[in-house]
Amino acid sequence: MGEQSAVAAAANKERAPEAEAEAEAEAEARPGCYSLALKVSREDRSFVPPINFSVVDCGLYRSGFPEAANFRFLRKLKLRSILCLCPEPYPEANVKFLNENGIRLFHFGIDGCKEPFVAIPTEIIREVLGVVLDVRNHPLLIHCNRGKHRTGCVVGCLRKLQGWCLTSIFEEYHRFAAEKARVSDLRFIERFDIASMKRLPAPFSS
Amino acid sequence: MGEQSAVAAAANKERAPEAEAEAEAEAEARPGCYSLALKVSREDRSFVPPINFSVVDCGLYRSGFPEAANFRFLRKLKLRSILCLCPEPYPEANVKFLNENGIRLFHFGIDGCKEPFVAIPTEIIREVLGVVLDVRNHPLLIHCNRGKHRTGCVVGCLRKLQGWCLTSIFEEYHRFAAEKARVSDLRFIERFDIASMKRLPAPFSS
Repeated sequence: MGEQSAVAAAANKERAPEAEAEAEAEAEARPGCYSLALKVSREDRSFVPPINFSVVDCGLYRSGFPEAANFRFLRKLKLRSILCLCPEPYPEANVKFLNENGIRLFHFGIDGCKEPFVAIPTEIIREVLGVVLDVRNHPLLIHCNRGKHRTGCVVGCLRKLQGWCLTSIFEEYHRFAAEKARVSDLRFIERFDIASMKRLPAPFSS
Repeated sequence: MGEQSAVAAAANKERAPEAEAEAEAEAEARPGCYSLALKVSREDRSFVPPINFSVVDCGLYRSGFPEAANFRFLRKLKLRSILCLCPEPYPEANVKFLNENGIRLFHFGIDGCKEPFVAIPTEIIREVLGVVLDVRNHPLLIHCNRGKHRTGCVVGCLRKLQGWCLTSIFEEYHRFAAEKARVSDLRFIERFDIASMKRLPAPFSS
């Protein structure tokens, strides 16, 4: 591994203090990321992300329904908005968390039990994507109840907007839905007309 | 959904041109993201991410072994580095791709078949994390062969450094390894001593 190994070693324990400072400065200068001194994780190793939590893109996250145990972790994400896809009223504890942290809630009621999913008005998904694609709402967390179906459909449509082939979109969908995958969700994603979204910009990691 | 719906609608088809311009400007101003005009995805809807591709954090990606079909997608990520965990010589086509796009390769040979994984020198994983944690190497793609075991262990140790509880770290590991999950990988992650990494900064979305 020669050179790479040396580079890694340099970046690791043998890295000079000034190089570390430089790396931390660059990390802190990047919106969406900051350099977390490890003493933080050593002092507190119990951040609990919501179930099925994942990074969708820079400044965009997905998960199941956040509960109190997840609030400390979510605070670390410095969220500007949360987009909930469940029709039920948002829980008091969650509303309190939003207010205390200046997080805006976008609430779209989509029935998670309705089958086939394609019966859901495409217009709502387009409105959801309008919020998701608007980086002025980022960092943004999209969630439903389990982070599998409704969230999976929204992210699937987003990937379609990003130009992903269906095979890759479906692979990602299955990674979260696993044995709960629904053909009706996949069909909804396949049929979703991105031409109807043509006036919106789409975020894309680069 | 009243207000939210109105907001979404505003962000969607009814958004004023100047608001769109503002959103695009903000998107372009954010390192790690840019606003992709949809005509791009409408002109070309066949980006093929590598198998098991996912965003780990802002500027940090994971996947299985990239092949030629994935190069056009990877170009969109504007990678600065690729970290390969397979011991085999890097394929000619991949080396050509790296050279043509000014991407640096960090190559660490870890035998993917060796069981138990814990037999692998922890020092190599520490060196790998040294490269992964150094944002000067970002955007960075970590990959092995299938993006399940070796990559899963590296990301698992990274999450440990970020303070995630083991339950969440294991949930993420299983999402990628599925039925191929290895108890030896989980044990390796659980036993990994992050105190040995204390001099390194850790990236963390915020």
